[in-house]
Amino acid sequence: MEKEAPSSKTAEVDFPLHSIGFEIEELSPQRVSGHLKVTQKCCQPFKVLHGGVSALMAEALASIGAHMACGYQRVAGIQLSINHLKSAVLGDLVYAEATPLTLGKTIQVWEVKIWKLDPSNSQKTSQISSSRVTLLCNMPVPDNAKDAGDRLRKHARL
Amino acid sequence: MEKEAPSSKTAEVDFPLHSIGFEIEELSPQRVSGHLKVTQKCCQPFKVLHGGVSALMAEALASIGAHMACGYQRVAGIQLSINHLKSAVLGDLVYAEATPLTLGKTIQVWEVKIWKLDPSNSQKTSQISSSRVTLLCNMPVPDNAKDAGDRLRKHARL
Amino acid sequence: MEKEAPSSKTAEVDFPLHSIGFEIEELSPQRVSGHLKVTQKCCQPFKVLHGGVSALMAEALASIGAHMACGYQRVAGIQLSINHLKSAVLGDLVYAEATPLTLGKTIQVWEVKIWKLDPSNSQKTSQISSSRVTLLCNMPVPDNAKDAGDRLRKHARL
Amino acid sequence: MEKEAPSSKTAEVDFPLHSIGFEIEELSPQRVSGHLKVTQKCCQPFKVLHGGVSALMAEALASIGAHMACGYQRVAGIQLSINHLKSAVLGDLVYAEATPLTLGKTIQVWEVKIWKLDPSNSQKTSQISSSRVTLLCNMPVPDNAKDAGDRLRKHARL
Repeated sequence: MEKEAPSSKTAEVDFPLHSIGFEIEELSPQRVSGHLKVTQKCCQPFKVLHGGVSALMAEALASIGAHMACGYQRVAGIQLSINHLKSAVLGDLVYAEATPLTLGKTIQVWEVKIWKLDPSNSQKTSQISSSRVTLLCNMPVPDNAKDAGDRLRKHARL
Repeated sequence: MEKEAPSSKTAEVDFPLHSIGFEIEELSPQRVSGHLKVTQKCCQPFKVLHGGVSALMAEALASIGAHMACGYQRVAGIQLSINHLKSAVLGDLVYAEATPLTLGKTIQVWEVKIWKLDPSNSQKTSQISSSRVTLLCNMPVPDNAKDAGDRLRKHARL
Repeated sequence: MEKEAPSSKTAEVDFPLHSIGFEIEELSPQRVSGHLKVTQKCCQPFKVLHGGVSALMAEALASIGAHMACGYQRVAGIQLSINHLKSAVLGDLVYAEATPLTLGKTIQVWEVKIWKLDPSNSQKTSQISSSRVTLLCNMPVPDNAKDAGDRLRKHARL
Repeated sequence: MEKEAPSSKTAEVDFPLHSIGFEIEELSPQRVSGHLKVTQKCCQPFKVLHGGVSALMAEALASIGAHMACGYQRVAGIQLSINHLKSAVLGDLVYAEATPLTLGKTIQVWEVKIWKLDPSNSQKTSQISSSRVTLLCNMPVPDNAKDAGDRLRKHARL
């Protein structure tokens, strides 16, 4: 009966993250991680991973983590700063991981790192970006988004 | 004969930017701008414009501008820092504009601002984000991306 | 009886800012500005203005402005991002100006720009840096710093 | 015959860093570190470590490291982004450490972390800030600063 049957956990939790092809793996208040196959739809014209796509991954993973870490209250990213350290090219597999730097009552700061993975053994090789996301937390959930936390809670590992 | 007939200037110039629904307007080495209707596919779970989507707009517009401003050599974003100042909600129309802060031989820095637009008259109302993108410029174009500049040149106004 | 009689408004308002030689001019909740003569004590070893000194100016001016703009409650900088666009060399005169980008109840964001001044007419010439400072505001003033607001109030223009 | 006999390694290597009271410990192309006693001269009016002083430490340590890591060519910081995570108060002892994230031919990125130290055993307790500094490297040394590298080389451990 559902109009939009979400094809994956990621689609339910963060739609823009899903739309670039990202797949969430771990989902906990201490760590949010996942991987992305670098396809045409996430490349800039020089056929390397678009820096804006890396930034989107960082903002998304940090927001999901902060949302869980403040007990499913509303969160809002207020600052993102990212350094692109190396390129990932079309066909590469990358792994992104967000962990908290500080979990204050009002402000949380998360660090998000992205690495390339060795396709033969899925081990992290070179780090391609480093970022920090600052979020305002513990805000009341608006009436039109009461289900935001439910979808996340369903998939989270506490 | 083309397999993927790009539906728009934006699709040809920057695919991830196109995929969120953004439409480029001005395309010159002094200014790159355009607008985005805030739809579900660019919202986070609280039904506001995803901060990562704002970051993607910033990185994309700055990269396009830097690419033109250095004479169609290769560019690569190395740093993005963005402050999200206000929310834009589902249904809002936003306008983004990138202008250069400095156009060095090796490094360019672009400022990208995003505003909400009043739907009745398309005038800018409140500014929703402010960002700066630092780019490494004037690098040789790799063989597999010789057409990147051509697609941009076709649409650019010098 | 005091050992260090503060020689200026700047010394009373922000000691580290004073110690690099900065002199505050305007002091209002809408704008905080001032100038600095680039001496040896604010240069890095290549005899150009130390990037950390520019960052200190940015953080200081934004904090002073936020302190006034939230009615002399306590403020704390939580994020600073600065792009150094051009060099200022030993002997140059620079002018710094902080203005608010957003004045929320919890979060304020200030933009701080620094320019070189033409010594002949004190007009701004090239912009040497651009920064944004994010601050947490409206926190209670601790007992051991009740006089912080008083010293600022004495010099402020409302 | 010298007017200002530098009192320390830090004074010779980076004067603004010395003037806030910082003392360099390790000095190598892989790590630059040191400590600071939080005195009045590095506090903001609320008697906590001035965020601009933390930023100055970050920019200074990263610049010194980059200067060594590129073989004593000229370097220039182009971007600094710092998150202030916790406060350090008057009397605290803090420890700062810079390590490289990427050492490219043109661009280096250094990460700088600052912690409070437990006065009883000098062990790191809470991290008070996290920052990244982006630097342009391998530029020719100007004639008026030929001695910059010599002073650093004298103290460096390769």
